[in-house]
Amino acid sequence: MSDAAMSGTRELVWREPLTPTALLQRTIRVFPDREAVIHGAERWTWTRFGEEVGRLAGALGRAGIGAGDRVAVLLHNSPIHLAAHFSAPLLLAPLVSINTRLAPPEIEYILQHSGSKILLVDPELALPLGNLLETCPDLECVIEVEDGALETQSDRSDFTSSYASFTEGVPILDLEPRVEDEDAVLSINYTSGTTGRPKGVLYTHRGAMMNAMGQIATHSLTRKSTFLWTLPMFHCNGWCMPWAITGAAARHICLRGINPPEVIRLIDEERVTHFNGAPTVLLMLASDPSAAGRHFDPPIKVCTGGAPPSPNLLEQMEKLGFDITHLYGLTETYGPHVYCQIQDDWQDLSAAERAAKMARQGVPFLHALHLRVVDDEMKDVAADAQAMGEVVMRGNNVMRGYFEDAAATDEAFRGGWFHSGDVGVMHPDGYIELRDRSKDVIISGGENISTIEVENVLYEHPGIFEVAVVGVPHEKWGEVPKAFVVPVPGSSLREDAVIAFARDRLAHFKCPKHVEFGELPKTATGKIQKFKLREKEWVGREKRIHG
Amino acid sequence: MSDAAMSGTRELVWREPLTPTALLQRTIRVFPDREAVIHGAERWTWTRFGEEVGRLAGALGRAGIGAGDRVAVLLHNSPIHLAAHFSAPLLLAPLVSINTRLAPPEIEYILQHSGSKILLVDPELALPLGNLLETCPDLECVIEVEDGALETQSDRSDFTSSYASFTEGVPILDLEPRVEDEDAVLSINYTSGTTGRPKGVLYTHRGAMMNAMGQIATHSLTRKSTFLWTLPMFHCNGWCMPWAITGAAARHICLRGINPPEVIRLIDEERVTHFNGAPTVLLMLASDPSAAGRHFDPPIKVCTGGAPPSPNLLEQMEKLGFDITHLYGLTETYGPHVYCQIQDDWQDLSAAERAAKMARQGVPFLHALHLRVVDDEMKDVAADAQAMGEVVMRGNNVMRGYFEDAAATDEAFRGGWFHSGDVGVMHPDGYIELRDRSKDVIISGGENISTIEVENVLYEHPGIFEVAVVGVPHEKWGEVPKAFVVPVPGSSLREDAVIAFARDRLAHFKCPKHVEFGELPKTATGKIQKFKLREKEWVGREKRIHG
Repeated sequence: MSDAAMSGTRELVWREPLTPTALLQRTIRVFPDREAVIHGAERWTWTRFGEEVGRLAGALGRAGIGAGDRVAVLLHNSPIHLAAHFSAPLLLAPLVSINTRLAPPEIEYILQHSGSKILLVDPELALPLGNLLETCPDLECVIEVEDGALETQSDRSDFTSSYASFTEGVPILDLEPRVEDEDAVLSINYTSGTTGRPKGVLYTHRGAMMNAMGQIATHSLTRKSTFLWTLPMFHCNGWCMPWAITGAAARHICLRGINPPEVIRLIDEERVTHFNGAPTVLLMLASDPSAAGRHFDPPIKVCTGGAPPSPNLLEQMEKLGFDITHLYGLTETYGPHVYCQIQDDWQDLSAAERAAKMARQGVPFLHALHLRVVDDEMKDVAADAQAMGEVVMRGNNVMRGYFEDAAATDEAFRGGWFHSGDVGVMHPDGYIELRDRSKDVIISGGENISTIEVENVLYEHPGIFEVAVVGVPHEKWGEVPKAFVVPVPGSSLREDAVIAFARDRLAHFKCPKHVEFGELPKTATGKIQKFKLREKEWVGREKRIHG
Repeated sequence: MSDAAMSGTRELVWREPLTPTALLQRTIRVFPDREAVIHGAERWTWTRFGEEVGRLAGALGRAGIGAGDRVAVLLHNSPIHLAAHFSAPLLLAPLVSINTRLAPPEIEYILQHSGSKILLVDPELALPLGNLLETCPDLECVIEVEDGALETQSDRSDFTSSYASFTEGVPILDLEPRVEDEDAVLSINYTSGTTGRPKGVLYTHRGAMMNAMGQIATHSLTRKSTFLWTLPMFHCNGWCMPWAITGAAARHICLRGINPPEVIRLIDEERVTHFNGAPTVLLMLASDPSAAGRHFDPPIKVCTGGAPPSPNLLEQMEKLGFDITHLYGLTETYGPHVYCQIQDDWQDLSAAERAAKMARQGVPFLHALHLRVVDDEMKDVAADAQAMGEVVMRGNNVMRGYFEDAAATDEAFRGGWFHSGDVGVMHPDGYIELRDRSKDVIISGGENISTIEVENVLYEHPGIFEVAVVGVPHEKWGEVPKAFVVPVPGSSLREDAVIAFARDRLAHFKCPKHVEFGELPKTATGKIQKFKLREKEWVGREKRIHG
C-alpha cells in the first residue's frame, strides 16, 4: 500500500511530540486544588506548583535562556528543584541537575563542560564554590534559592542574586509545551564517574515521557499515591519521578536529606505510599529507634537499587511493612531499566530462597522492553545462570549519547546495543543477575571470580554490615580476592573467622585471602568506590590501576 | 547548542520504534506460565498465546501477506481474534476488524474499500455472505475460524479453508517486532456510519502503543487484573485493550456475546476486575435475575460510553458493587479520549448531584492530553457550562487520517485539530459535557435546543427506559422537538404525562411537542440512529434529510 494512500493529513495533528512537561498541564486541569508538593510547612496545590513553574520559566526566559541553553541546578530536593524539571524543558533548555555531594572542582568541571549559562544554587552549597562567574566562562548568572523559603531577600553580592529578585515581577509563562522535536535534549545528567571525568548523558523529551508513563504503569501510581523524595532529584532526574508522580497527580513530599526519624515521621503522618533508597539507607531506617516495633499497613512500596537487598534486610523490611522491589539501571538508562518482578509462587519458598530470587536484578520494565546478556560477539550467553556476559540494553529509555563525546558514545553503542559495562548471567526464567562490573571481575589463576558473588556470601555473616571485595596482587595467581569489611557495631569479628565462613560456602579459589576492617570509600551517590580500594593495593604496579 | 554536539550516535539504539506488539514479547518473558486468555473451557498461558500469535503470523506470511497488505477479520471475541491483533501487525499488515453485526452488503463494502487480501471469518458469520472471492476482487482467500475450537477440520468448499489447514505445518514466526516506522498503519477501523458510507480510520503503531500505556496507567491494570471482553474487539480495536491487557499481563476472558447470566457467572467465578459496556448493556445486567441481591466486593471497575449513565443506572450499579467510569471518544480517537474523573469531594453530594457530575464526559486521558470546545473560528468557548461549541481533540491517540479519503481527512482536521462533530460545553472545572451531535441540534424559532439536554430530563421520569429526541417540521418554528420513548415494561405512560413532566423542568420551547412510543432504531454498536427517526418525519421536505 502506498504511503500516500495511508496519509492525506497534516503531521502536527496526529503526531503530538512526546514531552513529560505536558503531564503537568493536564494534572493542573484535572486536579487543580489537590495537594501536589509538600516541603516542611509549605503545602502547594497543583495550581500553585504550576504557577511557580511558569514563574521560573518566565524568569529564565527574561534572563535570556532559550532553546538549547543549558540551565544548571545545585539544589536539595525542594519545590524549586522540582519546578526546574518543568520550567527549563518548557523553554527547550536542557536541565543540568548536579550532584550536591560533589567536591567544588567536580562541580566546576560539570558547569564548564555543559556550558551552563545559569546556575540555581542553595546558598549552603554555593559558599564553598567561590566565584563561579569568574571560573566558568559560559556562566552568566548565579541564583541563590533559599530552600523552601521563597520570601523576598536582598542580593548577597555582585555575583549572585536571590530567587526572589530573579523572579520579581516576571510574567508567568503559560505551560503549553513548545516541543516540536521530541528527540531534542531535555536534560544532561553527569555520570557519577567511579573513575575518570564524568560524562554528560543526554536525555530526550520522548525518552523521559516514555519512562514517566512506564513508571506510572509499573508502580500503579494514582492520585492517591504519595511519594517521599528520599531519592535525590539530581540522580538521573530522580529516575523520571518528577514527571511520573506529576502525571499520576500523586503527591511529592520533598526532603533535604535523609534523617531516619524524620523519614519515619513523614511516612506515618503523610501516609507515604512509595519511596526509594539504597540498601544502606534502608538498613539505617530499619535500625533506627523510631522504627522499632512499627509495622505499616497497607505496606509501603520501596524500590531499592545499587546493590541487591540481603536476606537480612528483606526480613527487617518485611517486619516494618515495607514491600521491596529490587531495581537496576544506569545514568545512561534514565535510571532503572530492570526490576525484579516478584512472582506469586515465590511466597512458597524459604526466606533464603526467596531472598536469592529477589537478589537478581530481573527483567526489563514495561517501557524498556529490551535486555540481553551477550558475549564479545554480541551473541546471547546460555540462559543457565552460569555463563557470564555483558548486560546490554535498548529502548526509548536509553540515552541519546554523551554530550560532546562522540567517541565514548560510539564505544557505548557498539553492535547496536548500549553496553552497561556490567557482567551478569541470564537465568533460565529470563531474569538477569549481575556478577560484577566488568572492571571489577577478579581473574585468579585464569578463573573468573565475581566479587559480588563473594560479597553476597559474606553478607550472610551476622557480624558483617557492609563488605567490598577486590582483587589484590598475588605472585602465583596474578590476583586474589581481598575483603574490606565494615562490621556490625559491637561485633568482634576477626579475619580468620571471615575467611573460614567463606571457605565453608564457596570454592576456595573464590575466598578472600585477606580481610581488612574499616570504612569504605563511596561516591556522592553512595556507590562503593572499589577502584580506591584497589589503587592502594596496586601502587607501583601496571595492572588494575584502570579500576 | 548545535544538534551535532547533542548527537553522535546511531539512531536505532536510542530511538526504539513504538509498537504495541512489543508488549506481548515482554509479557511472555516475564510471565510465561500465567493464565493469559480464557475462552469457554480453553485456558491459555502467555506462552501458549504467543505460540498462536506466531503460528497465525507464520501462516499469513506463507499465504503471501506482507507489509501494507490488509488482513480482514470478521470474528466474535475469541482467542484467534485477539491473536490477530498481534499477528497481522508483526507482518506490518494493517488489521481490518469488521463489525460482526453489519449487513452483508456493508461487510462487502468494507472488504472492497480496504482492499483486504485475506479474511478470517467465523463460519456462522460467513454463511450469509455468499462467495466473497467473487465479489471482492482483492480478496485471495477466506479462512473459517471455529470459535474457540481449533481442532482440525476439512475445508468446506473450494472458496474457503479451515484455520487448521491454513496453519498446518507452518513454521511459528518469532515475536520480535519488525517495525521501523512507528507511524506506519497498524489497523483500519471503519466508522459505524450513522449516515453515509463508513470511512476507514487509520491507526498507527505509535498511537496504539501510547494508548495501551495510557490505559494501563489510567485503570491501574496489573497482572492481578482480569478483563472480561464484553466490549467487541472490532470496536476501535477494543479501545486498544488487546494490547493494554497484554502489556499489563492481566487476563483476557473472551466472550462471544452478551448473555447476562453468563456475564454474572464469569464475573463471579473468574474474579473479573474490569469490563466495559454501554448503559443499555449495564441496565440489562442489573435487571437480570442472576444479579439480584449480588454485591461484588472489592468493586468491579466498569467503563461505560455511548450515553451518559443515568442516576437510576448509577444507583443500581452501586448496589451491585460496580464502580462506573463514564468515557467518551470516537473511532477517530482510538476509542476513549475523555473520561469523567471522579473527584473525592463528589462523595459528599446528593445522589442526583453526583449523577449530574458523572453524566459529564470529562477530561482528557493521560495519553490524550488535548481537548477543547471551540467556536467556528477555533476560539475556546467560555467555560461557563452554557456556551456551546464543537469538541475538538489532538494527540497521539488521534487517527492518522481516513483511508483513501484525503478530502474527508482535511475536513476533519481543519484548523489543526480533529473535529469530533459533537457539540458540547466547557464547565468551569475543565470538564466537557456533550450537548449534541452537531447534526442533531434542533433550531426552533432561532433557538438552539440540545436534544441530549431534553433526553436527560426525560430520563429522570421513572417510567422511561430509553428516549431519543429529534427535530420535526413545524410551520411556525421551523422545527420542534419530538420524543421517541421506550417505556419501562409494565408502565402505562401517556404522551401528555411526558410533555407535562418536561414542561415542569425545562424552558417550554425545549419541551417535546409530540411523543411516540416504540422501539428505537440502532446501529450495530448500539447507537441510536436519530437520522432514521428524522427521516420519516421529514419525508418530502428539503431540510434534515442529511441527518
